[in-house]
Amino acid sequence: MAASILMLIMDGVGDRAVEELDGQTPLEAAETPNLDHIAKFGENGLMDTISPGIRPGSDTGHLSLLGYDPFEVYRGRGPFEAAGAGLSLEPEDVAFRCNFATEKDGIVVDRRAGRIKERRDELAEAVQEIDIGVDFQFKETIEHRCVLVLKSGGLGGDVSDIDPHEPDSEFQEAVPLVDSEENKRTANILNDFTKKSSEVLSDHPVNEEREKEGKPPANIILPRGGGKVPELKGLKEKEGLNGAAISGIALVRGVCALAGMDLIDIEGATGGIETDTEGIVEGALTALKDHDFVLVNIKGPDIAGHDGRPHQKIDIIEKIDSALEPLRDIEDTYVAITGDHSTPVTIKDHSGDPLPLTIKGKDVRTDGVQEFHERACSRGGLHRIRGSNLLDILKDLADRTEKFGA
Amino acid sequence: MAASILMLIMDGVGDRAVEELDGQTPLEAAETPNLDHIAKFGENGLMDTISPGIRPGSDTGHLSLLGYDPFEVYRGRGPFEAAGAGLSLEPEDVAFRCNFATEKDGIVVDRRAGRIKERRDELAEAVQEIDIGVDFQFKETIEHRCVLVLKSGGLGGDVSDIDPHEPDSEFQEAVPLVDSEENKRTANILNDFTKKSSEVLSDHPVNEEREKEGKPPANIILPRGGGKVPELKGLKEKEGLNGAAISGIALVRGVCALAGMDLIDIEGATGGIETDTEGIVEGALTALKDHDFVLVNIKGPDIAGHDGRPHQKIDIIEKIDSALEPLRDIEDTYVAITGDHSTPVTIKDHSGDPLPLTIKGKDVRTDGVQEFHERACSRGGLHRIRGSNLLDILKDLADRTEKFGA
Repeated sequence: MAASILMLIMDGVGDRAVEELDGQTPLEAAETPNLDHIAKFGENGLMDTISPGIRPGSDTGHLSLLGYDPFEVYRGRGPFEAAGAGLSLEPEDVAFRCNFATEKDGIVVDRRAGRIKERRDELAEAVQEIDIGVDFQFKETIEHRCVLVLKSGGLGGDVSDIDPHEPDSEFQEAVPLVDSEENKRTANILNDFTKKSSEVLSDHPVNEEREKEGKPPANIILPRGGGKVPELKGLKEKEGLNGAAISGIALVRGVCALAGMDLIDIEGATGGIETDTEGIVEGALTALKDHDFVLVNIKGPDIAGHDGRPHQKIDIIEKIDSALEPLRDIEDTYVAITGDHSTPVTIKDHSGDPLPLTIKGKDVRTDGVQEFHERACSRGGLHRIRGSNLLDILKDLADRTEKFGA
Repeated sequence: MAASILMLIMDGVGDRAVEELDGQTPLEAAETPNLDHIAKFGENGLMDTISPGIRPGSDTGHLSLLGYDPFEVYRGRGPFEAAGAGLSLEPEDVAFRCNFATEKDGIVVDRRAGRIKERRDELAEAVQEIDIGVDFQFKETIEHRCVLVLKSGGLGGDVSDIDPHEPDSEFQEAVPLVDSEENKRTANILNDFTKKSSEVLSDHPVNEEREKEGKPPANIILPRGGGKVPELKGLKEKEGLNGAAISGIALVRGVCALAGMDLIDIEGATGGIETDTEGIVEGALTALKDHDFVLVNIKGPDIAGHDGRPHQKIDIIEKIDSALEPLRDIEDTYVAITGDHSTPVTIKDHSGDPLPLTIKGKDVRTDGVQEFHERACSRGGLHRIRGSNLLDILKDLADRTEKFGA
């Protein structure tokens, strides 16, 4: 009988030899009895999420882990953010991430409008009333973040950002990144949208109140990261898998949503460091009862990596480990534990260093590896695989693969 | 001077950790002094015949081992079965595997016509006389099995099976699997062929005699597994190798025949468990005298895998091993020993688990591996390669490769 599959992604877990840790990686320095147990009874190796030396984003990394070729399907972050925000997208739509920002005399004085938290829905409603000649959807997400989807067909996805990215800079004019009529049309619409967002927000009651309170007004929308929505074949059609995903990160949720997976919300689970790891693992086990495949992303290690904090990364890894007790003796399920990319504390950004990988389940060829970390797993029986191989390997182990040929 | 190459394929030899064998694989549990000797003086590794997690058929697996990309050239099993039956094929032909079967009132009551053994040539001759408006070849192979090749050009290869596959079912009408004029034409011809085969066989003297003897008549032909004959560049042209193959399996023989290799028959060698392994090895050594490259396929381990019998698999492996004594000190030849796919006794079917691989010959970089099995080879110096790399590696070792570049 076919078994189910659990893929646990410790976001950014991979690291380099850290001087402050006597040359160990944070994963090596951490006390991880549950991960070590799983590695001991599993088969282990290294994984290049995309290919050696390529630094994956969380979006391209998860695309690869789900068996999509990011070089083929990835056309920008916007569509995944928008899908992760719960907007329903069609393949010809063009989507952008946006910020509520504070503008004064053409200069963006605060790219995040004081990390605005209150009454954003009212501002978003006002923006949604703008007339820019095409259908669009606009929605606030977390704090100053929001998403814009241009629904009209015939639009290109390759246009430059309105967001200047640097503080105290002029907001930019969108221009085509690739010369085409479609991209010109999108650039014009986006410039019009930005101007009109500023008009409608400037004297909005919410901003009048903010100014009274001495807070920076959210008086302009700054789109960036535009891209056409890719046409992804759903996991059910592509892999025969009824999938679910648990993640607190809009970008990862968006990838999984566009792959046709159910998004499962866990109370207390967030994309931050203080997430409920026990609740996430429990939720994953529940989801496995009515799904063939569950992907879980836990963001914490990536945050500590970006912040360059090895000891915080160790703490987060140990916290995740302590929640993995129920996976030690899980039956009828193949469990893979790995990351979507490395985020070395020495680099403070994603890197292309390969990730440790362990796969545990019935009858796997154990390989003598006793611990779960980069060096130990590099001596394992799986050797070095690509992220795009992982789901194939798991499906094969779980007896969910069709023979190719006779 | 260039050396010769022997590739020994132990069909389905790879396996998983088997509980009944205390977590060993059958290959690990078997006593294999000759294989271990070869591994000890060879270089070793793991091999994904196609790519990690992909379950190869014997046809697609051998195509990959011969350096063809099965995703590019594979279009169904029929052409390889027909080539393996000794029919001479052209690239535009469309070939099918068929069964002699027993039909009654439109229902297939026995898909194998009682595994008919006698006078099949007379039935085949009668079928060959049918007029279906195009040239065709029809030939009986083993027991109830036969092959059909439609020789006329302009025919498609993607049509559904006439064979219902299930007992006591109606025989099916062939329909195009991909909508095209060529496929429609093939479907019509195949339906006509089936009807006329039934007419000509129903009152055939062989069947009258069978009915008298209480045996099920072979009164219909059921084609299946249709496909267009791929245009394979021969091994001589592609690799500069004058090749020969020894195999008792029509499917493997067909792949090798279409690759332009000589098929060598060994008395007593079959595709079954009771094959003459000593005779096969002796035949391979003889073939190496006038061939650059000899491929040997021994089917036994795959049969035990499909039957889910770990101890039978061990016995077969030990029987093969005992025949390999002459390969211990073979000179002027690089010997590779591996499989075409795993057939774990726990799965009872092909799987994508990687295969053990050893390569022995002059000056290879030995790697400390002392035994030939999945776990031991995974610690070898070859690491993890693809089946499509193997012939390149062997040709390079044997000094039969042109430099790429200057």
